Amino acid sequence: MPEESKVSAASAHTVSSYDEELQYLVRRISEMGGVAERMVEQSVHALVNSDHSLSQKVISDDLLVDEAERQIDEKAVLIIARRQPMASDLRDIIGSIRIAADLERIGDMAKNIAKRVIAVEGLGQPKKLVRGLEHLTELALNQLKDVLDAYSNRSPEAASIVRERDEEIDAIYTSLFRELLTYMMEDPRNITACTHLLFCAKNIERIGDHATNIAESIYYMTTGTQPDNERPKDDETASVSVSAK
Amino acid sequence: MPEESKVSAASAHTVSSYDEELQYLVRRISEMGGVAERMVEQSVHALVNSDHSLSQKVISDDLLVDEAERQIDEKAVLIIARRQPMASDLRDIIGSIRIAADLERIGDMAKNIAKRVIAVEGLGQPKKLVRGLEHLTELALNQLKDVLDAYSNRSPEAASIVRERDEEIDAIYTSLFRELLTYMMEDPRNITACTHLLFCAKNIERIGDHATNIAESIYYMTTGTQPDNERPKDDETASVSVSAK
Repeated sequence: MPEESKVSAASAHTVSSYDEELQYLVRRISEMGGVAERMVEQSVHALVNSDHSLSQKVISDDLLVDEAERQIDEKAVLIIARRQPMASDLRDIIGSIRIAADLERIGDMAKNIAKRVIAVEGLGQPKKLVRGLEHLTELALNQLKDVLDAYSNRSPEAASIVRERDEEIDAIYTSLFRELLTYMMEDPRNITACTHLLFCAKNIERIGDHATNIAESIYYMTTGTQPDNERPKDDETASVSVSAK
Repeated sequence: MPEESKVSAASAHTVSSYDEELQYLVRRISEMGGVAERMVEQSVHALVNSDHSLSQKVISDDLLVDEAERQIDEKAVLIIARRQPMASDLRDIIGSIRIAADLERIGDMAKNIAKRVIAVEGLGQPKKLVRGLEHLTELALNQLKDVLDAYSNRSPEAASIVRERDEEIDAIYTSLFRELLTYMMEDPRNITACTHLLFCAKNIERIGDHATNIAESIYYMTTGTQPDNERPKDDETASVSVSAK
């Protein structure tokens, strides 16, 4: 995307080395977001298809995301120290640090899913569970894509929409949680694999939460205020109980 | 602690309004750490003793931690904008934002444990599992206490010790994970409660990770460098498999 980012940098600011530094952060975060997105997609694909080499790729890609966070952090601190930015630029820079931290965690979640490929393999992958997990992943990936777009477009409205939509993910996660418990009760041989799938589902639900955190950071960066209404980040499975027959 | 903090502020800096602002961050983080510590302790106590009113207290205490993070963030950004701090103070201020984020997450973990009190109740709490969970909690709380001390004393050495010790928690978590799976296989009626206990154990293991993150922030704040050696933050249960008899 070098061409595109040059154009947007030129239109948004008069070109200066300070602007270039700020644009560096924007570009690195967009790239980092792209890598995290791909990792999530590939981790679930590896899980569903027992694709060991793909899961290895996801695990090693996590280093890219870690390194990106380190670079963004260092650059952010350097810019603040050197340029003594005004309030709105400062919000942007602090926002970059926050967003990079969320993206780094999303990379961790994808890696964690990829690591469970072997443990889940034995389950024989019942269609219903796989469909549920894929659906959950689709929703979380949409959230991640939309929030990265909101970031590129600096749109607090688009960020707010992402934030509101997190509930949908929580609802799907809760129903998947129930299904997995039921499946474990039906046959103890499913317990190990289903437990790992539960953690995978939890990771995907958390990816949705991180997308929501990013949405909140964008809102703060672009408006200077926090969103008013509280949004509970917890999943709702804490009280879910399924009885053995 | 007003008396104590006045004394330490006076001894560390010549008194000025800038120093007072920096001291405010230190004091708020120590207080926030104290609340998070208490929440973790009480959440597991509530879980083990089926104490519903204590679990409600932990759940509502989470608001204190959330509010503390908001205040620390706002103050930190304000100080940077107003005072245009030099590199070492800037590291301190950015470090405060990071540490507050980790403490906020620890509060979330404690709340999440507290919310599972009802779902776990039915298990009749086998001694071995309870002991395992309490032991894991003890280790995580020690890490948290020690890292908060390292923060008060600005000691990179003490922070490094915390960081090295995280492996112990991972090992206990892995063995608890196996025990819980085995217990589920023995009797399907244990599945729901054990699944919730698994998530509680995972939360405690994550508290250890956050203590380690804080240790890394302290190291960075006090030395200006990142610790050299990579420390894997993942748990090692991703490949654990227990077979049904």
